[in-house]
Amino acid sequence: MTKAKSIAVVGLGSMGFGMAQSALRAGHATWGFDVAPDRVEKLIGEGGKSGSIPSVAPGLDIAAIVVLNAHQTKAVLFGDTGIVQHMTPGSCVVSCATVPPDFAREMAAKCTARGVLYLDAPISGGAAKAADGLLKIMASGPPAAFEAAQAALDAMAETVFDLGAEPGCGSAMKAVNQLLAGVHIAAMAEAITFGKSQGIEPGRTLDVISKCAGTSWMFENRAPHIVAGDYSPRSSVNIWPKDLGIVLDIAKAARFSAPITAVALQQFVAATGMGLGGEDDAAVAKVYARNAGLTLPGEA
Amino acid sequence: MTKAKSIAVVGLGSMGFGMAQSALRAGHATWGFDVAPDRVEKLIGEGGKSGSIPSVAPGLDIAAIVVLNAHQTKAVLFGDTGIVQHMTPGSCVVSCATVPPDFAREMAAKCTARGVLYLDAPISGGAAKAADGLLKIMASGPPAAFEAAQAALDAMAETVFDLGAEPGCGSAMKAVNQLLAGVHIAAMAEAITFGKSQGIEPGRTLDVISKCAGTSWMFENRAPHIVAGDYSPRSSVNIWPKDLGIVLDIAKAARFSAPITAVALQQFVAATGMGLGGEDDAAVAKVYARNAGLTLPGEA
Repeated sequence: MTKAKSIAVVGLGSMGFGMAQSALRAGHATWGFDVAPDRVEKLIGEGGKSGSIPSVAPGLDIAAIVVLNAHQTKAVLFGDTGIVQHMTPGSCVVSCATVPPDFAREMAAKCTARGVLYLDAPISGGAAKAADGLLKIMASGPPAAFEAAQAALDAMAETVFDLGAEPGCGSAMKAVNQLLAGVHIAAMAEAITFGKSQGIEPGRTLDVISKCAGTSWMFENRAPHIVAGDYSPRSSVNIWPKDLGIVLDIAKAARFSAPITAVALQQFVAATGMGLGGEDDAAVAKVYARNAGLTLPGEA
Repeated sequence: MTKAKSIAVVGLGSMGFGMAQSALRAGHATWGFDVAPDRVEKLIGEGGKSGSIPSVAPGLDIAAIVVLNAHQTKAVLFGDTGIVQHMTPGSCVVSCATVPPDFAREMAAKCTARGVLYLDAPISGGAAKAADGLLKIMASGPPAAFEAAQAALDAMAETVFDLGAEPGCGSAMKAVNQLLAGVHIAAMAEAITFGKSQGIEPGRTLDVISKCAGTSWMFENRAPHIVAGDYSPRSSVNIWPKDLGIVLDIAKAARFSAPITAVALQQFVAATGMGLGGEDDAAVAKVYARNAGLTLPGEA
């Protein structure tokens, strides 16, 4: 057990809120920041604190940034009301959004220039794991950043992968994970609905394939949503045009051809075009079903 | 334990040979047939028997057909030297190749017309599981066929999925499994080589992703071949243009659009075009690596 620290979580969405809960449970003084006041109030109700960035930031040991993308991360760190300008040298930014590796290197350099440590630390695991302190964190940065971030990592993660001293390596590994995760969700949808076209109900496909060589982590996690006809968003369709877009951008910059990723992305784009962006990402199955005139569980 | 039966295995490739070994180990009189005499001799060396189809077939309880495809299955069952014409009414064909559901229904009807039972019974699990009697079998057919095939199923399978009384349902589920298995192998190759393009060694990707949401059964099974630079074929590239071709044929017939499967197929076709058809299917990673000018483990 590390000594109690002062930890801020910036971005209290489903991941960030759970991470703040985990920090509180581990006994740390935990500040929450979000554009939505009700999320901040909810955290205060659980023992958290809030305040103005200029007043809180100088006392922080760690600021975990859990916003949607690179644009938001940059605004939170270095915008007019950015947090880094107020942080104390030797304190640490833990950057958790999925961003391009080059962006992570740029943020690290800007933090370092102000004496603030930076850990490139994308997260994997979903909201439930975040709340339970059982995330996987794909981290890279100098040893001093790992050391400074230790209390937050201990509170929030089941496993921290140390991917080396170079910022960007964590984000690169996260991109590899997102490539597979996104492709596997779309492939799950393609397979479940293909089975339906052959007269096999989704529940039967789930039962059999989860025990066969065709299974994947995402198949077992997301196919039950289709079987239940429940598309309330645990993780939404909108995540994937963003994350697979990052994968394809950095792949293209490396002159790497990723045709399966490109096609999976198009299926998620089609889902957003059908108005399903806010639904659970398993709703990409509806693209396949509508294209083929098939009816999924829970549909009229 | 069921009573000892007379079981033939037609097709002693890596799957069929293992299934014959499992039948022998379970105490059944086991006949082996193959176009390659050395495979038959090897089975005899392990306690199996052989002979001419016309002399052996009338005494069989069960004939398991474990050949490459629909064409070979039809030839083995109903060609000039086909086995069904010599089988006794009430005995059972267990058809294990990956074939279109319509083909399974056609074979079942032709067997039924001669009083021979037919179990549509594609297999999953690979050569090691076949030898250990631990296959997954996706079976459909009338209750009488399940009953007649019981001894072979008990000897060869860890799990038999009963997919109903209708032949073709087993083959349809196998097609769903192959869609996912093939896509997951190609996606694994895309992800491992994409990681390499970002400076991440394949071994590191294997370590991290196998513990994250991006993992799949195929990722964990095949990525180690790339990490080891070992493309000796456990299951070859050549399987996939065939099996994904079947998936796309029956999808097209059902007017079902399967774009991810279509792209994965093209990557395997490219691998065969590069002369890699006989290598382990993980060699599809070489397509990605050569396209991007990357070097995989074990390459000069």
